[in-house]
Amino acid sequence: MTSSKPMTIDTRAVLVIHGGAGAPKRETFTPAAEREHRDALVAALRRGYEILKQPGGTALDAAQAAVVWLEDCPLFNAGKGSVFTREGRNELDAAIMDGATRKAGAVAGVLRLRNPVLAARAVMDRSSHVLLIGEGAEQFAVDSGCEQVDPEYFWTQSAWDEMQEVHRRVVEKAGKTPHMSHGTVGAVALDLEGNLAAATSTGGITYKRAGRVGDTPILGGGTYADNATCAVSCTGHGELFIRYGVAHEIAARMKYAGQPLVQAARETLDTLPGDADGVGGLIAIDGAGNYAMPFNTRGMFRGYVTADGRFHVAVFPE
Amino acid sequence: MTSSKPMTIDTRAVLVIHGGAGAPKRETFTPAAEREHRDALVAALRRGYEILKQPGGTALDAAQAAVVWLEDCPLFNAGKGSVFTREGRNELDAAIMDGATRKAGAVAGVLRLRNPVLAARAVMDRSSHVLLIGEGAEQFAVDSGCEQVDPEYFWTQSAWDEMQEVHRRVVEKAGKTPHMSHGTVGAVALDLEGNLAAATSTGGITYKRAGRVGDTPILGGGTYADNATCAVSCTGHGELFIRYGVAHEIAARMKYAGQPLVQAARETLDTLPGDADGVGGLIAIDGAGNYAMPFNTRGMFRGYVTADGRFHVAVFPE
Repeated sequence: MTSSKPMTIDTRAVLVIHGGAGAPKRETFTPAAEREHRDALVAALRRGYEILKQPGGTALDAAQAAVVWLEDCPLFNAGKGSVFTREGRNELDAAIMDGATRKAGAVAGVLRLRNPVLAARAVMDRSSHVLLIGEGAEQFAVDSGCEQVDPEYFWTQSAWDEMQEVHRRVVEKAGKTPHMSHGTVGAVALDLEGNLAAATSTGGITYKRAGRVGDTPILGGGTYADNATCAVSCTGHGELFIRYGVAHEIAARMKYAGQPLVQAARETLDTLPGDADGVGGLIAIDGAGNYAMPFNTRGMFRGYVTADGRFHVAVFPE
Repeated sequence: MTSSKPMTIDTRAVLVIHGGAGAPKRETFTPAAEREHRDALVAALRRGYEILKQPGGTALDAAQAAVVWLEDCPLFNAGKGSVFTREGRNELDAAIMDGATRKAGAVAGVLRLRNPVLAARAVMDRSSHVLLIGEGAEQFAVDSGCEQVDPEYFWTQSAWDEMQEVHRRVVEKAGKTPHMSHGTVGAVALDLEGNLAAATSTGGITYKRAGRVGDTPILGGGTYADNATCAVSCTGHGELFIRYGVAHEIAARMKYAGQPLVQAARETLDTLPGDADGVGGLIAIDGAGNYAMPFNTRGMFRGYVTADGRFHVAVFPE
């Protein structure tokens, strides 16, 4: 022991993001690819952090900005990088929630919106509704100023190849479908006012049936925020996350069982019925800046930034 | 006092239903109309009760049967009696959940399915998904044997008149829109095996925007069932019920705060932000047959049947 005081390190986060659970196998994930993904996560964190540093910068805007960045990045299954349905389309879902007011907005099954999370924000800010789906959602978003794109915008080689590979295996009855990334992107944030927010966006699952909606736009399922407890964004086997109300369950464990955030997040994930490959993961933050990033898949693209501007990103268990 | 033993009366319910919160004003609700609604509620309860009496009759089938009956009845805002969107269409939503397995199915934004709750059941039983929307949901349901109808099937004079009246007031900027029924139908059941189930179905809200989805098909929002706690079906201002995760919140209060069902249901409803006309109501049942039917609107079409076959229905506060 020395007599010098330990350096004060802020271990609290102000912004936590994920780029989906179910990372590639370590052995097939090249160092170059890992670097590319890590750089993207840092860039997304930076977008949100720049907002949180500003006077009056809100958790809501920061979470949204990080998700917009991830939607525009082709590496993740949301926005630009969305996976394909079995019909070869991209059907996108997103949600956003403000912990201060518990106001929320979500869209599901949209085909032509560049940034579904901005459509979700428009639903929250400019309508009396929480969830709009399909063409009605698109029309509302466009009327609200959201950018419309040709569906071809969402075409990426890797997503197309993954869909074709799943199709081949289904046709050939080749047993278990190959590993598919549980892609989704999300962000949870805490601002200087102590307000929390959560945002999530996804292209769903490769080869999904037309009209299938997962937990992303289900408030309380894959996305939730309440200043009294926490903000949560999930990624994984969406059907399970809906049935178990995962995001709301974490908040309820904190509120009614007095569990700390990290315990509530971990135990909620652990109660989900298992799967050899894992079922997913989540990110969560509370009003004190405590955060959790549990997952039971091979990996989860994830990261956080502290109030004093230290960035940390990871893919595999640490 | 007499020495005879008091007659044993079973005060536990096996099936509870609702036909929507926000009943008409007492003064405009004729005795004939009230009788018609009460008879319909009894008939729906009877459908479910006949299943629960049979050996092996399940809560899931009973809740579903009661909701199918209410969907086919033109008096309630679900199935046949669904209200109109501002475009003059009927967009229907439904959900069902099995408390024993926490399996669930839901559909949203379907236009041509006679009984959306049967489509929700098909999603639960015949797919790996929980929520299907729009055309994908319809195609899946029809492929699964659900009955398709011409959209004109859903036309009723009263629903059409209500939409026209709202449209007139919107065009004339006549201030507050008229009272609109928070219509939805639902059922929660308990079978002899101790299993719980919940089912909900709705036409949404009159003059709603195309693509708007309320709490009905949101598991944890308007519909939820878990043998460990309770089964819940909600009716009312759906956006609030989603944002507050009402159905899951009741279960969480029982599980983590040890609240009895009646308290959990009442307090959850009481925490919702207020509205002079009230925001809705719900029905809930636990594994011991305790039940709750709280609402803060003028009335709620509701009823229950006990294990020994006593039926009780009501519209206004008692």
